[in-house]
Amino acid sequence: MARDPNCIFCRIVAVEIPAAVVYEDEAVIAFLDIGPLAEGHLLMTPKVHYADVTQIPPSVAANLGAALPPLGRALLKVTGAEGFNVLCNQGRSAGQVVQHVHFHLIPRKSDDGLGFRWNAGSYEAGRAEELVAAYQKAIANA
Amino acid sequence: MARDPNCIFCRIVAVEIPAAVVYEDEAVIAFLDIGPLAEGHLLMTPKVHYADVTQIPPSVAANLGAALPPLGRALLKVTGAEGFNVLCNQGRSAGQVVQHVHFHLIPRKSDDGLGFRWNAGSYEAGRAEELVAAYQKAIANA
Repeated sequence: MARDPNCIFCRIVAVEIPAAVVYEDEAVIAFLDIGPLAEGHLLMTPKVHYADVTQIPPSVAANLGAALPPLGRALLKVTGAEGFNVLCNQGRSAGQVVQHVHFHLIPRKSDDGLGFRWNAGSYEAGRAEELVAAYQKAIANA
Repeated sequence: MARDPNCIFCRIVAVEIPAAVVYEDEAVIAFLDIGPLAEGHLLMTPKVHYADVTQIPPSVAANLGAALPPLGRALLKVTGAEGFNVLCNQGRSAGQVVQHVHFHLIPRKSDDGLGFRWNAGSYEAGRAEELVAAYQKAIANA
């Protein structure tokens, strides 16, 4: 199993350093974030080292997707939260600190002061159509 | 296919209202957010109506997971962004507005003023262990 010996999450997977592991299957591990934004804040990560979510092969990505609903149900039950955010910060500019792909599950309650900064814009006439064409070309050639 | 006739995303899936669709497979559709936080901001959603991410069956959740890496690659190529956030707001307290599960893919650049509000805490001695036990029980009974 591919790992990076200097990666803190790979070392958690290898049980070289302790973590508060709550879930584990053949491809996925979940544990408490030690710097929680709210009590019960989880990290869900592939066991294999991928620095970049765009590099995850389809089977592992599918395992991550499938693990999310049961982890979310457990989070709501354990924390009593009203909802939660699922968040992956891909790249340093997006807030990624540990360079091993991980998804945050962040318990939320009304007026907790958390959440994503939201400053919605809009498209000028014709721009959305240009972007659709560019996306379709990029996906066809991916 | 289960749908809610009053749901805007179900109506996009049914092609009853227009959307800037960039990707579609048997279970998943992705289109431009009409109120983008950054140019090229995508929404990825299951075609079937689920209001709650915790209700998504494993096969659909796996399809969503598998669609994420290629959509992320396309986003980086189309937008020239340095990174991106993947974000699901589950529940109104978490910022969910449309009650049909969706994942935002938000292009990011350094100093763009976006991102999740981060105010990390810590656990008092023993609390993490209590949470792990509660999570393991909840997951076992899920």
